[in-house]
Amino acid sequence: MKEETDMTFIEPVMMGNDKLIILDQTLLPGEEHYLELDKAEDVCEAIRSLRVRGAPAIGVAAAIGIYACLHAAGPGTTSELFAAFGEQKKIIGSARPTAVNLAWALDKMEKCLESAAQEASGNESEKTGYILAKLKAEAVRIREEDIAACRSMGEHGLTLLRPGMNILTHCNAGSLATAMYGTCLAPIYLGNEKGYDFHVYADETRPLLQGARLTAWELQKAGTDVTLICDNMASTLMQQRKIDAVVVGCDRMAANGDGANKIGTSAVAVLANYYEIPFYMFVPCSTIDLKTRSGKDIVIEERDGEEIYKMWYKKPMAPEGVKTYNPSFDVTPHTLITAVITERGVVKPPYHQGLRLIKEHSKLGIFGGLREAIRSGIDE
Amino acid sequence: MKEETDMTFIEPVMMGNDKLIILDQTLLPGEEHYLELDKAEDVCEAIRSLRVRGAPAIGVAAAIGIYACLHAAGPGTTSELFAAFGEQKKIIGSARPTAVNLAWALDKMEKCLESAAQEASGNESEKTGYILAKLKAEAVRIREEDIAACRSMGEHGLTLLRPGMNILTHCNAGSLATAMYGTCLAPIYLGNEKGYDFHVYADETRPLLQGARLTAWELQKAGTDVTLICDNMASTLMQQRKIDAVVVGCDRMAANGDGANKIGTSAVAVLANYYEIPFYMFVPCSTIDLKTRSGKDIVIEERDGEEIYKMWYKKPMAPEGVKTYNPSFDVTPHTLITAVITERGVVKPPYHQGLRLIKEHSKLGIFGGLREAIRSGIDE
Repeated sequence: MKEETDMTFIEPVMMGNDKLIILDQTLLPGEEHYLELDKAEDVCEAIRSLRVRGAPAIGVAAAIGIYACLHAAGPGTTSELFAAFGEQKKIIGSARPTAVNLAWALDKMEKCLESAAQEASGNESEKTGYILAKLKAEAVRIREEDIAACRSMGEHGLTLLRPGMNILTHCNAGSLATAMYGTCLAPIYLGNEKGYDFHVYADETRPLLQGARLTAWELQKAGTDVTLICDNMASTLMQQRKIDAVVVGCDRMAANGDGANKIGTSAVAVLANYYEIPFYMFVPCSTIDLKTRSGKDIVIEERDGEEIYKMWYKKPMAPEGVKTYNPSFDVTPHTLITAVITERGVVKPPYHQGLRLIKEHSKLGIFGGLREAIRSGIDE
Repeated sequence: MKEETDMTFIEPVMMGNDKLIILDQTLLPGEEHYLELDKAEDVCEAIRSLRVRGAPAIGVAAAIGIYACLHAAGPGTTSELFAAFGEQKKIIGSARPTAVNLAWALDKMEKCLESAAQEASGNESEKTGYILAKLKAEAVRIREEDIAACRSMGEHGLTLLRPGMNILTHCNAGSLATAMYGTCLAPIYLGNEKGYDFHVYADETRPLLQGARLTAWELQKAGTDVTLICDNMASTLMQQRKIDAVVVGCDRMAANGDGANKIGTSAVAVLANYYEIPFYMFVPCSTIDLKTRSGKDIVIEERDGEEIYKMWYKKPMAPEGVKTYNPSFDVTPHTLITAVITERGVVKPPYHQGLRLIKEHSKLGIFGGLREAIRSGIDE
């Protein structure tokens, strides 16, 4: 799985010996420890405790996870297999009920189960063997599709960047959030494979410090030159002309191009706009939600204030019982986004048109050679 | 010293029983502990270790401190008193050699010593008694002048604010940085004394967390409604129209109105500009440096990266040895500053003219009834 160059890409979710292998992200950056899982309760706990995180990575973990659990259960008959699947799907699916990719991956595995059961022939042992082989292939395919989508996003993103650029990123939309490459870090990895010599500034991303703990770690691991800053330092770097482009991920993009992402993203976008620096949002087609008209329709989750002043610290860092406001995400208005990069191409304003086009075509299959058809409204 | 209302104002630097009394800010917010000092080495250590911090507070501490040390030394003759003063000035003055207010306050005390020595009559004991009494009065006066200047800044600032406003501040330019009231927090205290019912959002202010540790603490202590946020959350609050004005302090203002202040201040200014929210910088006249033409001429101090990912945390929060960039200050361009508030009045653009006028008049004495003379270019 290693690339031909000497770069080390993190693969936080893999299949190995018919088990789900995940990098335990709660131990980063101090310890790089991989878990081997084949019990539904353990897979559920790993997702719930953020040992594996990031929408694409969670989907892949669920697909490989349910296969690994079925394999370990060793059902002797088709009906035992169906029963085990139903039970495990329920357990794993409950880990983070609002995570779209989790349900999506488990549904895909269920469809595979159903069609494999129809195709299967022979005695019960042969049938269950056939179905398990199909489920294994499907889980592997889901992972490979994610890697291909990330790589494609990286290639499209790379067309917007020039060698030697200094690039700012916020939070972690890197390898650790996907099966490999990441979304907004993909062009950085692909560029540096080609010798583009990108340098990255990573916002630490308070309060949960994903930038410091995860982004700085995975970039350093891959041999990418990275400098860690506090979130409030981006402005002075931009003022000094030390940032050439900003790349960020996206948790949900509305039909008009407003994008919800980790708290602080909109601040970076406002700064980039003021200092006239391009701001690129990396958005897998699955993240574009045409049913949400604009950012105003996106509900923002608020979390416990102890994340701000207590959980990481040696001692409380604010007066006990201080009031806090701790939203997890913010909405970047589409007017501040220079371009949206998907696995199918680069979308530029007006977003309403381009996002609809690219989203509709994505239903036809991820890599269908549809590029000619969707040139209108989309730059590749 | 308590106001007639029931508000509790922090007084971090006082004289008591001929000793320097300081609130040990390194123990905040966990513990409110006051130190009584009368040894030059202890005063020096307290300033150097940031037990007392903020330019105005350091000046007041130096003035009271050198008096307290002289009083404790109990010189029997004028020449012993001069020798002790010289020695103590050297020790205290070395605490933070670049702090302008430290040298300024010690020089003021020295001038007082010289003129008192000329006036003094009687035997040696009467002479030293007279000089010590004069030095005590001068130290008290320096403290009272600081309180009056802060109160005046508060009154001028208050003319720009309306009751019920939600006000964002960054870092700590409050009571803890002065003898009382603070610079940019003064209008909030004075307003709330009058029942203005201001609500404050305090940026935590990474990496040293002065907003969380100090601003949230002193506002809460004074009964002011305060909400703590991470620095990267201001944008989403502004987008939701939850911020009506921004108030910040200043470490050095150039002749053109560019203002250096705690890192992250320029980011808040860019955001306020984008969301069309007034951005007010509170600048004592002593902080206006007409010899510095613009922000480009201000050298920004860089500090150790361990402040970012190690010093506060239970465990390292980024990969060991990660590269960091940790500037202590940034420069807010004058074009983003809605008004500059000094103890002599409010200055509005063009700053070049107004700042020069107000600075020149401040040389004539701080509260000289010069308001008529300086109306041109200055709003009161």
